[in-house]
Amino acid sequence: MAWLFNDPDQFADEMVVGFAAAASRWVRHVPGGVVRSTRGSEPTVSLVIGGGSGHYPAFAGLVGPGLAHGAAMGNLFASPSTQQVHSVARAADQGRGVLLSYGNYAGDVLNFDAAQERLRAEGIECRTVLATDDVSSAGPDEREKRRGIAGDLVVFKIAGAACQAGYDLAEVERVASFSNDRMRSLGVAFGGCTLPGADEPLFTVPEGRMAVGLGIHGEPGIEEVEVPTAAGLAERFVSTLLGEVPDGVDVRGARVVPILNGLGSVKYEELFVVYATVHRLLEEAGIEVVDPEVGEFCTSFDMAGCSLTLLWLDEELERLWTAPCDTAAFRRGGVSGQQQVAAEEIEAAVAAATEIGEASDVSRRAATRVAEALDAVAAVLDEHADELGRLDRVAGDGDHGIGMQRGSRAARDAAHEALEAGAGAGTTVQRAGDAWGDRAGGTSGAIWAAMLDAFARSIGDEDAVEAAAVAEGVRQAEEAVERVGGAAVGDKTMVDAIVPFVRTLTERVGAGDPLPQAWDAAVQAADQGAESTKELTAKLGRARSHGEKSRGTADPGAVSFALVVGTVGGRLWGA
Amino acid sequence: MAWLFNDPDQFADEMVVGFAAAASRWVRHVPGGVVRSTRGSEPTVSLVIGGGSGHYPAFAGLVGPGLAHGAAMGNLFASPSTQQVHSVARAADQGRGVLLSYGNYAGDVLNFDAAQERLRAEGIECRTVLATDDVSSAGPDEREKRRGIAGDLVVFKIAGAACQAGYDLAEVERVASFSNDRMRSLGVAFGGCTLPGADEPLFTVPEGRMAVGLGIHGEPGIEEVEVPTAAGLAERFVSTLLGEVPDGVDVRGARVVPILNGLGSVKYEELFVVYATVHRLLEEAGIEVVDPEVGEFCTSFDMAGCSLTLLWLDEELERLWTAPCDTAAFRRGGVSGQQQVAAEEIEAAVAAATEIGEASDVSRRAATRVAEALDAVAAVLDEHADELGRLDRVAGDGDHGIGMQRGSRAARDAAHEALEAGAGAGTTVQRAGDAWGDRAGGTSGAIWAAMLDAFARSIGDEDAVEAAAVAEGVRQAEEAVERVGGAAVGDKTMVDAIVPFVRTLTERVGAGDPLPQAWDAAVQAADQGAESTKELTAKLGRARSHGEKSRGTADPGAVSFALVVGTVGGRLWGA
Repeated sequence: MAWLFNDPDQFADEMVVGFAAAASRWVRHVPGGVVRSTRGSEPTVSLVIGGGSGHYPAFAGLVGPGLAHGAAMGNLFASPSTQQVHSVARAADQGRGVLLSYGNYAGDVLNFDAAQERLRAEGIECRTVLATDDVSSAGPDEREKRRGIAGDLVVFKIAGAACQAGYDLAEVERVASFSNDRMRSLGVAFGGCTLPGADEPLFTVPEGRMAVGLGIHGEPGIEEVEVPTAAGLAERFVSTLLGEVPDGVDVRGARVVPILNGLGSVKYEELFVVYATVHRLLEEAGIEVVDPEVGEFCTSFDMAGCSLTLLWLDEELERLWTAPCDTAAFRRGGVSGQQQVAAEEIEAAVAAATEIGEASDVSRRAATRVAEALDAVAAVLDEHADELGRLDRVAGDGDHGIGMQRGSRAARDAAHEALEAGAGAGTTVQRAGDAWGDRAGGTSGAIWAAMLDAFARSIGDEDAVEAAAVAEGVRQAEEAVERVGGAAVGDKTMVDAIVPFVRTLTERVGAGDPLPQAWDAAVQAADQGAESTKELTAKLGRARSHGEKSRGTADPGAVSFALVVGTVGGRLWGA
Repeated sequence: MAWLFNDPDQFADEMVVGFAAAASRWVRHVPGGVVRSTRGSEPTVSLVIGGGSGHYPAFAGLVGPGLAHGAAMGNLFASPSTQQVHSVARAADQGRGVLLSYGNYAGDVLNFDAAQERLRAEGIECRTVLATDDVSSAGPDEREKRRGIAGDLVVFKIAGAACQAGYDLAEVERVASFSNDRMRSLGVAFGGCTLPGADEPLFTVPEGRMAVGLGIHGEPGIEEVEVPTAAGLAERFVSTLLGEVPDGVDVRGARVVPILNGLGSVKYEELFVVYATVHRLLEEAGIEVVDPEVGEFCTSFDMAGCSLTLLWLDEELERLWTAPCDTAAFRRGGVSGQQQVAAEEIEAAVAAATEIGEASDVSRRAATRVAEALDAVAAVLDEHADELGRLDRVAGDGDHGIGMQRGSRAARDAAHEALEAGAGAGTTVQRAGDAWGDRAGGTSGAIWAAMLDAFARSIGDEDAVEAAAVAEGVRQAEEAVERVGGAAVGDKTMVDAIVPFVRTLTERVGAGDPLPQAWDAAVQAADQGAESTKELTAKLGRARSHGEKSRGTADPGAVSFALVVGTVGGRLWGA
């Protein structure tokens, strides 16, 4: 729906004023629409486009160097009047003739034709090329009756680039018309749009249904089906459009521009998910995808829907499609002196950053024990996931159990993978931490990743993992937690367990205790910290179940920390 | 809501695949996100941005020459993990250091900080600049606590341009941080977004209400009010942001970039209507508006809302803000050799196209009678508007009466204006026709405009408007109607009246009858054509009121044509 307007009757006029103010780098407001505010060094044929408003960036957003010279802007979803088209064309004309181009709708044809007649009577050479790309609006033997939808952009871009390249009017007409012959679109809709000031949508689609071929003003489609998956829609788009390949084109080896257009409420992220399958299917059909476009090129206010257009290139169309242009809403080119980097080069850089480094035998043996310890940790956290979730629900969003479960599983798998690749103890712990943070998500995921990373760096891939090294490693881990998490002892977070753990371990190792004993003592200290969290949590839970307002928070990070170090203890240093 | 997805759990991953395929001109997919697929001639500082997905074009759409070098792409609305940020930064690094930049959210800070620590530990120089532009998320004395919203784009663009310009890391950090100091945003929301696979919106705003300062993930705002007008919202935006001008900036004479950002469902047309007032208010405050942006730069899936950002420029910021860049979603520059055309020049061209030409005295006298005749026509159509509307409702949408009323009023006013400017008869009729078509809209408006234009050309501004000229003029008008409207006699349109009218007038004038008598006879012939339309309409009306299915259509164009020529007859040629 529309939220922002003043007097709905003035909406279209105010929109033009706002657009012209925002886009003064490209356009200037003239009666009936806008024309370019810039000029090149030589006069060219002028391209004048237009139609009803409500389809931005069509049409005014496409005026500028390399694209259109002017746009006649009708009221919302209403053709511009003859006078509007005439006025814009007169202002855009540079003495080399005018190409009128727009989507095939009766009202537009009426008014653009009348304007063309008047321009010719005034001695201005004038031709017309319509966009007729919507395959669902008429059969392949009546292509001239089809409506124009997002394929408008193709005809405009090709014609605008031809003007810019110095073509004469007949040649601009020829290539624009050829581009229309070489393109097909299919659109679908999930819901209509509501114009400013209207109480209800202009048209609707039943919930959960998809109207195939529904026009951008609600013109009837060809069928209504259940909303498919993104991949299902991509398959329908591609199979329909590959079912009507332009004459003389061989699909295998063809160079094709796909344009996936959103109508307003279907957003970019969804379009990219659909495009992933479109791209794959086109490649599987032996097509070379060129310069695709995914976004909003011809909207219908906030209508929910999208369309796929395929443009089957030849050498000339490819040159014109990829030529630079600069408009408020569609631009190509811009920064010179750039070159493409080979895919292999980027892959090599990524591989280098994640390469398993050299490691000593002693560190590799320690890595084996790390992986075994992580097997045990993942198993214990699996067991305790529900309990940790329950604890978290008192003070948080209840996802701590599942986060620790996911994180520790991923860490276990990553550790084994690193081990097989010959990693030392440090790298194995680091890979485990990376995977933990990546899969667990949330604050605790990030803290575990930081903690394991700090520990890993401290123990490295060379030295034996002996008592002093472990004590130094956990000290570094504690620092990382405090730095990253920003909490202090008593905040009822993981810090309440790690601080006594590290203090005890450092003291006992310093006093000459063997690591296994020192570690066990440290685990007991961590357990005490965790207990106080559990007590507070229980108290909070009781208070809340009696309807009291919550005071304080307690996250179960200390509890899960104690669990993990308790599990590790017996394995990593016990053997 | 979201319509298009496969497995919701895979949505973010599939989106990255689709985006990387669609945007391979600019980016390549690496673990954790994307990096540029292009390289300039010299290594530069690398800008790595990122955040949760669902905000496209933030963040991946902003990777490319002149802007970011890489984007870490988290799950929907979730921070990228430490590993993701680290992986992207490693792939983007060119050996001159990395600037991390992103919006200020706890999860992002946690993970980006941890990644920064790791990068530094690996010997990669690394700095961070946060975007903290949302004035409603903390007071002016706690700006470092504010969230980052659409102002992200400013910090990224300034930092990216600084990298491109060869600044070293400390200098990139300095100017990026300065750009954040120089910018403020205010956002509003009308409704939340629904993520793929979710049953209900992530958050909601009551219908008819506007949440001021609501965050792009639903973070609490500062108040809830009724949805204002577009102008009312613009006033709130501007007055709030002018209430917190950066230190050391003088409002009058300041150069400011406004960025009006839509969050997803508030569409371009609405944004332009809001922008019209924003622009005016900024100018009234003595501000020089530079290079504004109106569109979608940081969305929140299909959330309904928008924000205004003001960037207060100095010379360096202006240079960097306007520098070329080329990314999937944000580009500047592109076509060289263009120069701005002065506003006066375009106005002069428009004025020349609409200039009142020379006219003879005899034609000017005829023009006086034309204007008088149009007074009468407008009065008669006023009287008959309801009747014409009723006739139209049987076969059409009922707007014929109001269309003819609006058109004839506008024609009358335009004729008097032309007359006062010294126009001859031809130009006076043409201006009247232009105005008629422009205000009446629809098919009949276009046909009346074409008819009057053809008549006007035929009679011209020189010769006396005598019998033969009038007969030739109406013949030309008839041809225009047939050409533009495409109907034939018997189609029950205006053609059923104009054809007998023109035939009779031509015959009688040819036979030597004086014009007034010939015209009256022609009017009778037109009336007969109109009667048959009325009869058919009555028949259709009766049939439909008995529930029969409609057969045939009848538009009241013949009736109104007969009315107009009947009214004109006695005046234009009678005196």
